[in-house]
Amino acid sequence: MTTDRILATYRIETAHPLEFAAEVMAGEQSCGTFVRVPGETDELRANHAARVERITELETVDTPSLPFSKQPKNHDGKFKRAEVVVSFPLANMGASLPNLLATVCGNLYELREFSGLKLLDLELPRAFADRYPGPQFGVAGTRRLTSVEGRPVIGTIIKPSVGLTPEQTTELVKTLIEAGLDFIKDDELMANPPHSPFSERFKAVSRVINDYADRTGKKPMYAVNITDEIDEMLRHHDEVLAGGGTCVMVSLNHVGAPTVAHLRRHSQLPIHGHRNGWGMLTREPYLGIEFKAWSQIWRLAGVDHLHCNGLRNKFWEPDESVITSARACLTPMYEDKPCLAMPVIASAQWAGQVVDTYKELGCADLLYVCGGGIVAHPDGIAAGVLSVRQAWEAAMQGVTLEDYAATHSELRRAVEKFG
Amino acid sequence: MTTDRILATYRIETAHPLEFAAEVMAGEQSCGTFVRVPGETDELRANHAARVERITELETVDTPSLPFSKQPKNHDGKFKRAEVVVSFPLANMGASLPNLLATVCGNLYELREFSGLKLLDLELPRAFADRYPGPQFGVAGTRRLTSVEGRPVIGTIIKPSVGLTPEQTTELVKTLIEAGLDFIKDDELMANPPHSPFSERFKAVSRVINDYADRTGKKPMYAVNITDEIDEMLRHHDEVLAGGGTCVMVSLNHVGAPTVAHLRRHSQLPIHGHRNGWGMLTREPYLGIEFKAWSQIWRLAGVDHLHCNGLRNKFWEPDESVITSARACLTPMYEDKPCLAMPVIASAQWAGQVVDTYKELGCADLLYVCGGGIVAHPDGIAAGVLSVRQAWEAAMQGVTLEDYAATHSELRRAVEKFG
Repeated sequence: MTTDRILATYRIETAHPLEFAAEVMAGEQSCGTFVRVPGETDELRANHAARVERITELETVDTPSLPFSKQPKNHDGKFKRAEVVVSFPLANMGASLPNLLATVCGNLYELREFSGLKLLDLELPRAFADRYPGPQFGVAGTRRLTSVEGRPVIGTIIKPSVGLTPEQTTELVKTLIEAGLDFIKDDELMANPPHSPFSERFKAVSRVINDYADRTGKKPMYAVNITDEIDEMLRHHDEVLAGGGTCVMVSLNHVGAPTVAHLRRHSQLPIHGHRNGWGMLTREPYLGIEFKAWSQIWRLAGVDHLHCNGLRNKFWEPDESVITSARACLTPMYEDKPCLAMPVIASAQWAGQVVDTYKELGCADLLYVCGGGIVAHPDGIAAGVLSVRQAWEAAMQGVTLEDYAATHSELRRAVEKFG
Repeated sequence: MTTDRILATYRIETAHPLEFAAEVMAGEQSCGTFVRVPGETDELRANHAARVERITELETVDTPSLPFSKQPKNHDGKFKRAEVVVSFPLANMGASLPNLLATVCGNLYELREFSGLKLLDLELPRAFADRYPGPQFGVAGTRRLTSVEGRPVIGTIIKPSVGLTPEQTTELVKTLIEAGLDFIKDDELMANPPHSPFSERFKAVSRVINDYADRTGKKPMYAVNITDEIDEMLRHHDEVLAGGGTCVMVSLNHVGAPTVAHLRRHSQLPIHGHRNGWGMLTREPYLGIEFKAWSQIWRLAGVDHLHCNGLRNKFWEPDESVITSARACLTPMYEDKPCLAMPVIASAQWAGQVVDTYKELGCADLLYVCGGGIVAHPDGIAAGVLSVRQAWEAAMQGVTLEDYAATHSELRRAVEKFG
């Protein structure tokens, strides 16, 4: 993109005429108000006013999505919905992610002219690619570090989420990697708690992983949760690096984009981006921010892996939204700087969702993370890992799961139990 | 508080029995799931399980607040609402704000057993007060730096929000401080854009402010927006300090709590906390987070001023919510470490809301920020400032606005124009 304007796409709902409502958004978030103030010259407006680029009217509804909307006089009781594209001059805030956010998802959610407003997508000028590092490892780096080619990196989460001692965690990790898992992660509830101090846990777990790597030539990736204050995050990153670890994990929403960008500039490891808290930002269809817009912030900041949920997951999210998210991660932001993040497909996953996941995404460049779908396999964890690998073989060879299961017992047993 | 448990209060909506739903929340966000996994011993559960402390049933509704909720078999079509208190052992995450957030407002928003879930309030163990700095200046420090006692600090925002050159901003600030304003702030849309580089703008504005202070002995506070990447924020803080500035402003939601805490540990100036983006987190009554909970994060991280909107504001927020927010800022978190933030009352404010604001808050320890309500006063900005001061005199003396206006012409003229 060579333009010097930011394009922001919104879904809106309003009792007002759509053109008026869109102009309110543009005015509030740039230099204008409906009352001109001294200093608001024509030149200033020409250089700095946000512009309504497109309004696509959608359906009309009788009930507002959000309370306390300001209704116009002689309101007919209807609320119009539309998709609106607003453009902002880059000159208004420069290439700064937090200041971009103050513009495209700041006070405009407060506007009472709207009974619904959600940021759907962003197109950001090249200046953002120049200022921000983007992912350092992405798909290729993650494949290199895990020695996995031609299929997804297959992983699991350490459970119970909290409460295990470092020794118990280490025992569990040992079992998991001996079973052939490529990737293991801390739960997002587990970072540096008193009952499992970060350094102690990492040191114990990494000893087991390093031993395994020495024996087999393959090092499973352990995404160790370094979420914390900034100095602690950098220090823990350095401990992981020094100890031969190959990944750090961060709860993105709770540390903020500047912290992630700061970590990225310091980091020599892939950053595993956990999106917990995401539901708060997106679950209401007419409030907040959609994944496509949200993910671009973190990809520019430098996240290598990004959680996308999974098909037929245990949460509220419909499959279509999951696939849209994973595709977004794999869609280049800039031709010469794609900033691709490796999608993390997780939540109630087992071999059963693999064929559809591959069909929808058209590639296997992802982290496929299963809990019970691997560890509760009737023939043990190693069989669970194999069942998921076999499902990916079937998907990538265009064979049905049933046909492949006929000749692969681990997959067959998984289908019998989980299907 | 001496307990070692975190208390989190939620408003929930669910098609399931309330007790079941509350247990799902507690399980998902601590060590448990409904299926026990290996390692989930009784001892581990005793030490780490979250606990449902109280369920207060509210009304029942026919339509779910959020889509895609999982309805139980034989669902009667009703959605029950309740206030629920869940407690989490501090041992699960330790005194870490981002990890606290991963627990109390993380994946639980994704749970499909809920058609609504909002975090209302938090009670945090003393360990958080030990680890986090809290506000450095607060009310007393802000009063000292602005030389304002016995009434609110009265301020305005530089407008137009974006587009003014540093010279134009400086001219405007000169006019504003000569008119007697105590406090001036950048708009949240204006931090360090190409058309008004931070250093150039701050240098020019501070020259005018320092001249005024030399002449009058009173230095107006300029909350200069340093929102940006971390290194830039610290560097800009240092420029402000070196240049005799007395405040820095940050868009809290877009930089994250660890960045604010990092700045606070480095800072020698009050931190003005702007809450833009807040509507995204709270405008749906059954999703997100209420101010009372949200504000505690930023107060612990060290914010001195916190935006609360204002009575009869231009946004969607009802007055009751504004007052609850301002009261929250002024309610001690810990007996020996109250972490009070000075509420910033702003948005469509003029002398007219002062009596009610004082009546509801019972004190004048706040920043009262007016735009048009001061600068569009028919007799000029100085008269606008006086009209607001007079309204506070009336309020604090228990005189009605009308009576006070009868003997104070600036207030009378404001009432005539804006009333």
